[in-house]
Amino acid sequence: MPTSAVAIAQDLIRCPSVTPAEGGALASLEALLGKAGFAVSRVTFQDEDTPDVENLFASIGSGAPHFVFAGHTDVVPAGAESDWRHGPFEGAIDNGMLFGRGAVDMKGGIAAFAAAALDYVAEKSPDFGGTISFLITGDEEGPAVNGTVKLLQWAREQGHVFDACIVGEPTNPDVLGDAIKVGRRGSLSGTITVRGVQGHAAYPHLADNPIPGLIRLLAALDALELDKGNERFQPSNLEIVSADVGNPAFNVIPARAEARFNIRYNDEWTLESLKARITETLEAVDLGNLALGLEFKRDASESFLTRDEVLIEALSKAVEAETGRVPELSTGGGTSDARFIKNYCPVVEFGLVGQTMHKVDECVAVEDLDRLAAIYKKFLFSYFSGADGN
Amino acid sequence: MPTSAVAIAQDLIRCPSVTPAEGGALASLEALLGKAGFAVSRVTFQDEDTPDVENLFASIGSGAPHFVFAGHTDVVPAGAESDWRHGPFEGAIDNGMLFGRGAVDMKGGIAAFAAAALDYVAEKSPDFGGTISFLITGDEEGPAVNGTVKLLQWAREQGHVFDACIVGEPTNPDVLGDAIKVGRRGSLSGTITVRGVQGHAAYPHLADNPIPGLIRLLAALDALELDKGNERFQPSNLEIVSADVGNPAFNVIPARAEARFNIRYNDEWTLESLKARITETLEAVDLGNLALGLEFKRDASESFLTRDEVLIEALSKAVEAETGRVPELSTGGGTSDARFIKNYCPVVEFGLVGQTMHKVDECVAVEDLDRLAAIYKKFLFSYFSGADGN
Repeated sequence: MPTSAVAIAQDLIRCPSVTPAEGGALASLEALLGKAGFAVSRVTFQDEDTPDVENLFASIGSGAPHFVFAGHTDVVPAGAESDWRHGPFEGAIDNGMLFGRGAVDMKGGIAAFAAAALDYVAEKSPDFGGTISFLITGDEEGPAVNGTVKLLQWAREQGHVFDACIVGEPTNPDVLGDAIKVGRRGSLSGTITVRGVQGHAAYPHLADNPIPGLIRLLAALDALELDKGNERFQPSNLEIVSADVGNPAFNVIPARAEARFNIRYNDEWTLESLKARITETLEAVDLGNLALGLEFKRDASESFLTRDEVLIEALSKAVEAETGRVPELSTGGGTSDARFIKNYCPVVEFGLVGQTMHKVDECVAVEDLDRLAAIYKKFLFSYFSGADGN
Repeated sequence: MPTSAVAIAQDLIRCPSVTPAEGGALASLEALLGKAGFAVSRVTFQDEDTPDVENLFASIGSGAPHFVFAGHTDVVPAGAESDWRHGPFEGAIDNGMLFGRGAVDMKGGIAAFAAAALDYVAEKSPDFGGTISFLITGDEEGPAVNGTVKLLQWAREQGHVFDACIVGEPTNPDVLGDAIKVGRRGSLSGTITVRGVQGHAAYPHLADNPIPGLIRLLAALDALELDKGNERFQPSNLEIVSADVGNPAFNVIPARAEARFNIRYNDEWTLESLKARITETLEAVDLGNLALGLEFKRDASESFLTRDEVLIEALSKAVEAETGRVPELSTGGGTSDARFIKNYCPVVEFGLVGQTMHKVDECVAVEDLDRLAAIYKKFLFSYFSGADGN
């Protein structure tokens, strides 16, 4: 009888690990994995202006290939608990559904992989010909400063070299098997400022209103077709997210106007080529004597696409075998911790169905938990034995 | 020997009548005019949320035509007195210039008219065949709630019916005799709001960004040529004075964007026809599913043009006779108290040179004060004896 993903998920849900609280979730995982023979490390990271965060790293086996499963036990707040059909930290099962904060994002995903890994190791013995690790963090839903980034550095310092990673985030829009994320768009933000000359609204010839200039700049950005997308990525998209002058007086022409934008871009661009295109687009606008300022935010992320055929093929086939669906290889949506992991090894993302994440009555079908565990287990057999599936 | 406008101006400047303080200025005027035979009333008005304000109304003569001179003794603050070459409330004369807060705006103008009126009445006797009044307020530089508007109502209730008015504001840009203001543009302000659907910047298809819609609306307003102006008025002008979203997050598409505009418009428009044009211009913009909101501010003013040929001709000829200049009949600049007076009688504006108004070292040439008094006196002779000048 396979290890119960549902029981592990219930244990984790009952730990109130709202970011940055550990809430007992990592301790529960430590006990489970330790008993199965994993070497478990609990690591706490700290930084200025953010709370201390506990994380967990666990490993079994030795040598290459080294597969790592990445996830987080912290959850977003439950909101008003009275709004929930079942307590958000109760782990109640009702009509085939397991309720609770983190059910899909992503204690359920961790539970499914833990069940899969325990069964795989039990069947193959710890000498299965490689290494399986858990990289579990505690602030993915928070500032993300004392989690994945530092735990990856720590693991490298401990001598761990990863060959492939699955992040267990809920990637399926509607049904288990819909989609594997094989890349992410990059994100670039910036601020535009236009400086003119302040003056009285009745004497515009003595002033130089920056707002019409800003309008022309924003119209040029809005008209920009960055690309048409490609086989793996949707078209890059620019959103103007704010425009601000802050002038309270109707009879004053302001001196300064500002706007902010965010771009989600695909692999047709590098960060540098995209910055150059935005700069050139803005500089082509006739501003007369107005002065243009452009500043890109420092927290930009590059787009990436994982091209590891062994990893993608093994996971894809496992999904298809369990669900009957050929998962879409998607690159849509926002950023995730995969953007940090891709600097260490090929990474894809696959987990549960995301529809209820961050909502009241977050829940997962018990059947989905078992099927996800089966998918992960099939993947492990396939991955560690090459392409022949077992 | 004529009454000294300079001496009266010095007396007034020495009264620190920064709005809303009376500062002794109205008392000084009351004494001067009372001694010359004027019937003087001091009237205090009050309202919610504004300081009480003292005003003065003085009259001499009887019957029609009834000419009224309008002005204010309150002044804007002096700022740091140490920045002034001569104390702002000293009334020092240096190298032919009288220094002090209010020298041109507009204690100097009041002093010039007082000197003119006193001499005119002395020469013609109080039975000169009409009425001369002073309508002097104390909050023109402040909220303008307890001044001209209420003093005009009060005077009407007292039975005064005015036939013509000169406002003694500094109307000359460079040299005495440059310009008589014979009208003013109207002013209309409004706020545009665009409502969309908030969302995550990575999922724009689930949101509806109001900013591109706002950009299109503002571009349409900016491209609008309201008119080309006419013989008496410059072209109407629209300024976008603010644009605000106030979204601090780069990864969020905002729900709402707002902009504000101000229009200075000529007599090619009524308030209603202008509102209709703006509404129609905005409604012609394709906003998709975004919702447009448009709200006009209530404090709009109508444009006006004074067509009283007797008034304009008498003043024009007096200016030309004293300065050798044919004054431009101007309608430029901002609004003034003339916008209230025009509802009672034809009104024009003529006073000193405005260059130093509201500035440190506000000053007026002593020669200009004497010449302005001479212009006003010539005007009175001309106005009260019909078109033949005396």
